[in-house]
Amino acid sequence: MPRAESGPPKPSLKTENLRVVLVSPRNPLNIGAAARAMRNFGFRHLRLVNPYSVAYQEARSAVHSAEILQQAEDFESVADAIADCNLVVGTTSLGHRELQHPLRSLEYGGRQIRGALSTTKVALLFGSEKFGLSNDDLSYCHWLVRIATQGSMNLGQAVAVCLYELTRKGTPAKPEPRKRAAADDLERLTDLLTAVLKQSGYVHSHGTDAKIRRLIRRLDLPAHDAEVWLGMIRQIQWKLGTKRE
Amino acid sequence: MPRAESGPPKPSLKTENLRVVLVSPRNPLNIGAAARAMRNFGFRHLRLVNPYSVAYQEARSAVHSAEILQQAEDFESVADAIADCNLVVGTTSLGHRELQHPLRSLEYGGRQIRGALSTTKVALLFGSEKFGLSNDDLSYCHWLVRIATQGSMNLGQAVAVCLYELTRKGTPAKPEPRKRAAADDLERLTDLLTAVLKQSGYVHSHGTDAKIRRLIRRLDLPAHDAEVWLGMIRQIQWKLGTKRE
Repeated sequence: MPRAESGPPKPSLKTENLRVVLVSPRNPLNIGAAARAMRNFGFRHLRLVNPYSVAYQEARSAVHSAEILQQAEDFESVADAIADCNLVVGTTSLGHRELQHPLRSLEYGGRQIRGALSTTKVALLFGSEKFGLSNDDLSYCHWLVRIATQGSMNLGQAVAVCLYELTRKGTPAKPEPRKRAAADDLERLTDLLTAVLKQSGYVHSHGTDAKIRRLIRRLDLPAHDAEVWLGMIRQIQWKLGTKRE
Repeated sequence: MPRAESGPPKPSLKTENLRVVLVSPRNPLNIGAAARAMRNFGFRHLRLVNPYSVAYQEARSAVHSAEILQQAEDFESVADAIADCNLVVGTTSLGHRELQHPLRSLEYGGRQIRGALSTTKVALLFGSEKFGLSNDDLSYCHWLVRIATQGSMNLGQAVAVCLYELTRKGTPAKPEPRKRAAADDLERLTDLLTAVLKQSGYVHSHGTDAKIRRLIRRLDLPAHDAEVWLGMIRQIQWKLGTKRE
């Protein structure tokens, strides 16, 4: 009788911990397709950042995946959408712009995401159909995964392929070595460092926030270290304030 | 600088040998999405069996993947569409009907398809959005792959996920042990055996053709053996004819 061959048993994937984040999606069909792919692969938590509102309303009224769409959460910014996540991963189809972030293959990065999901919340970001993730969006990511394709992917298909890779049998999860700092701590650290750098005269120009944000994300800080750094920089800030007066 | 980590070098995939076969697709967006996924993952040969003609015309005029759609081939039957292929694999999302065919996970089956592609033509069949592949369609398949999902997949997403698995890094191809018989030889063998079984009084009823076709596909005959069998059964047929007179 027909039976699918299966690989060796592996710890079950904590799909509960994944947040699929669609940033500025425009097309209701794509939002619906993303939700349908999530349902197909057993993921539940959809977050939308600034969805084009007509698109969103249409998608919500679609037949498939009603539950996921009804429970989807809206956010005004990427920062808000990922605040409670300890690992933030962006997706990109091609490096047409200068990427400032480590870029991993979906196969390799997928293993790391699987490992991280076992202990922590992970946000997986998808950009708009037309423009992908902006440099500002990307600055919130620890690293990026790339699906090795020729040309850019349809949003629904990109979500399906990524979630397939996460639930795919046959490749072990890469265990998460330690608890990462949550995104909101990293954002606090970014703000604080930016303020201090401005205060100290290191930073003059506008538009450096994303640069500093990336710098902080690349540190890949453990939760405990983030607190230590916050304390250190607060102290420096206080000292700078004192000197000025 | 950003660089995708890659696995150990592996022989390049012969994408040229794959035929993506859409059986009775209804929705032009899905045909277009399938073509776009093919282009994204580097596959070129699309075949359509009885596409709903309005859908097909609309899809052809779509912006993306124009080249693949322009060069797509039309067929009136599954048998014609797969005649030159030596391995025919069906796709299914769930075993809601009694499957008479070996069912393999996409991960496991994908390795075998990769191996087969190195030496031979492979057809990968996708059913219509609404009904999937019919039992008759399935009877032309050597075996089936199943994408492990909850509920049925969107056609474009199913094509994307399957082609992603085929081009995915990190899992070795399973080498094809020998040259398989081409589908048209197997169909000749099926016809011949059906005729002989009818002639000999073993088969009375209608509707057994698909059963015999599956029986032959499950033999998984090497090319040379198929010829031997054809010769043997032709001889039997001749003998039966002689006796009758």
